[in-house]
Amino acid sequence: MTYMDLKGQKLKSAEKQISVASTEDKNFALKCVAEAINSNRKEILAANEKDVQNGILSNMSEGLVDRLKLDDSRIDGIIDGINTVIKLQDPVWKSDRVWTMENGLTFSKMTVPIGVIGIIYESRPNVTVDAFALAIKSGNCILLRGSSSAINSNLALVDAIKQGLRNSNITEEVIGFVEDTDRDLVSDMLNATDYLDLIIPRGGKGLIHFVVESASVPTLQTGDGNCHLYVDESGNLEDAVNILVNAKTQRIGVCNACETLLVHENIAKEFLPMAYEALKDKVELRGDIATASIIEVKPATEEDWYEEYLDYILAIKVVKSADEAIDHINKYGTKHSESIITENLTNANKFQRQVDSSTVYVNASTRFTDGGEFGFGAEMGISTQKIHARGPVGLEQLVSNKYLIMGHGQIRK
Amino acid sequence: MTYMDLKGQKLKSAEKQISVASTEDKNFALKCVAEAINSNRKEILAANEKDVQNGILSNMSEGLVDRLKLDDSRIDGIIDGINTVIKLQDPVWKSDRVWTMENGLTFSKMTVPIGVIGIIYESRPNVTVDAFALAIKSGNCILLRGSSSAINSNLALVDAIKQGLRNSNITEEVIGFVEDTDRDLVSDMLNATDYLDLIIPRGGKGLIHFVVESASVPTLQTGDGNCHLYVDESGNLEDAVNILVNAKTQRIGVCNACETLLVHENIAKEFLPMAYEALKDKVELRGDIATASIIEVKPATEEDWYEEYLDYILAIKVVKSADEAIDHINKYGTKHSESIITENLTNANKFQRQVDSSTVYVNASTRFTDGGEFGFGAEMGISTQKIHARGPVGLEQLVSNKYLIMGHGQIRK
Repeated sequence: MTYMDLKGQKLKSAEKQISVASTEDKNFALKCVAEAINSNRKEILAANEKDVQNGILSNMSEGLVDRLKLDDSRIDGIIDGINTVIKLQDPVWKSDRVWTMENGLTFSKMTVPIGVIGIIYESRPNVTVDAFALAIKSGNCILLRGSSSAINSNLALVDAIKQGLRNSNITEEVIGFVEDTDRDLVSDMLNATDYLDLIIPRGGKGLIHFVVESASVPTLQTGDGNCHLYVDESGNLEDAVNILVNAKTQRIGVCNACETLLVHENIAKEFLPMAYEALKDKVELRGDIATASIIEVKPATEEDWYEEYLDYILAIKVVKSADEAIDHINKYGTKHSESIITENLTNANKFQRQVDSSTVYVNASTRFTDGGEFGFGAEMGISTQKIHARGPVGLEQLVSNKYLIMGHGQIRK
Repeated sequence: MTYMDLKGQKLKSAEKQISVASTEDKNFALKCVAEAINSNRKEILAANEKDVQNGILSNMSEGLVDRLKLDDSRIDGIIDGINTVIKLQDPVWKSDRVWTMENGLTFSKMTVPIGVIGIIYESRPNVTVDAFALAIKSGNCILLRGSSSAINSNLALVDAIKQGLRNSNITEEVIGFVEDTDRDLVSDMLNATDYLDLIIPRGGKGLIHFVVESASVPTLQTGDGNCHLYVDESGNLEDAVNILVNAKTQRIGVCNACETLLVHENIAKEFLPMAYEALKDKVELRGDIATASIIEVKPATEEDWYEEYLDYILAIKVVKSADEAIDHINKYGTKHSESIITENLTNANKFQRQVDSSTVYVNASTRFTDGGEFGFGAEMGISTQKIHARGPVGLEQLVSNKYLIMGHGQIRK
């Protein structure tokens, strides 16, 4: 029996229990896990310290070390996250559609858990707990594969989770963790169609593309965000500056940050200097020729239009019309989040209808694309694919459905 | 530029038009296509005759030749199919959820087309038109790859479709057809992530598994149906016999036909002879040892439990309880359709809750798993996967969604 068979069979067997568990049992299990994490702080922080030291020794960048590092307040944040999930509505065994056909058969479309969900993720150890909590609340089992740089932290967190589950009515086998950081196991996981119903990669572009290309298990592509702000000729330019500064600089390492600014040519001479003043101290600006004729920018290359910088860099292009802005976004974007600043109803409608992205804003910052800001409470990531779920993946997106049909002897004619 | 690039770019460019086309324009285009098929009968039948002759020459089985063959009444059926789709509600740009958050942002979750859908299908030429009609009505472009055995019929049908589209306001480029039967092109198609948003294989197990294993484009797995009928100890045995005969023999080559009968041990001595009488002239029975001690059957092997016969063959097993029936189904089934015959409420509930299939019946034939019987009007197949859509794939399952967010200058705090 292979390593993946061993993991997979335990999960499949736990799936039978968790898929029909009561909300009460699931919430109690989450409460037990929150308590176990709280009482395991010392062990978790010690394990995390090992990862941090290893990271520093292997010349990990400061930003990545910061993402990896846990402290008491971050552990509080992890526990708060579990408590948030406890408060969310159970998405399982709900129906928004019951109907009866002429022959008397009654149909109910019910939500059911997906089954066993695999998560492949990078650095941040809090994902271990967040993903677990969302999966369990939606009646799914979860198989986690974190990065080797966080292996000690993740093992300590999974230990605490399992400890907590042992105090609950839910089996600890609902969570599996790939302790072995052997890369071949990732490939086994991506093709474990007998055990996994869905794989969600969480991390950078490279990881996501590798998973989507290599997996035969269905995948949910998340988090690739080259987001655009288009300032239309009729836009309120003060709002546009505020929104631009917010979308570009409020947090740079996130998928809903703005990476490219598109400006209508009729207001470029007025707006670009305003944008320049607001950003110049913090942000490197790269522009096309029309932009460079108005403000000081580095020249933008074709590659810049495709780039998700996740950094203090902004690409700028002057366009002739809303149509050109829409075409640019649909060509270079990643179907994540885009915003138009306009007072023109026709252009607002056209932009929302024709831009092919998960979330399309009028007069607001792209930074709102987030499960919490949508009112979903918590999320597993932002899906940029059109299949299964698009936009923030909260509890309601972590279920499938089943049709129940009640008859009294009907046969097909 | 490769063959797939050429096809893909045309489709992507047509997607811009069809994705926002009005219901009126889409219905008019379908009407034009129906008329063109009607006026091209002679050409279509002549092309089909070539395929049929080639099939006979290459020793194609009688059943397959029959599936391949078109005649006037089958062309009428194809035209009726288009008219059915014209009458269905347009699934695009609808919302069942609009809400406003505290900061004043208003969210609308809208349905949008998926984009470009690829279909890889076997023998039956009517699929060419059915799939086209469903795709267009839901605002999607479609790339078809039929089997080489139906190439002449399919080309004639696609010609008629394009002819019809030229009389409408929808570009003929919304439909692409892989004329070249080179098998390498299938692999190019399965990995054309730049052009295709979804691939639906329609055909036998082999085709479906090949597509799911090889594709990096997301797939919708359809039609693999090892369906079960479980007769509980409290079941009405006369209803059970009627339902068994219907589910097994009304049509054998379909995915919702019954392949395995499970019988509770307490009624096996009474029920199995009834089943035997009803089926023995038409159906080969294969049973486990307990069954063989009651009626005359061939011995069933472990492989029989996995088999989708699509033939006049039925596997039979005696079980100790509803739980054993559920476990058997979840182990050997394909998550398609299963039915319990029972008067016991607890067992009915348990069966519907715990059987992990797209459609779970109480006291009815599995043959009802079908878009038409569900009231969906028409279908692209029956999905047996849990991601995106499960059960009959009608127009409502051929859409994705997009969030529209209206603000007035909101930024994230």
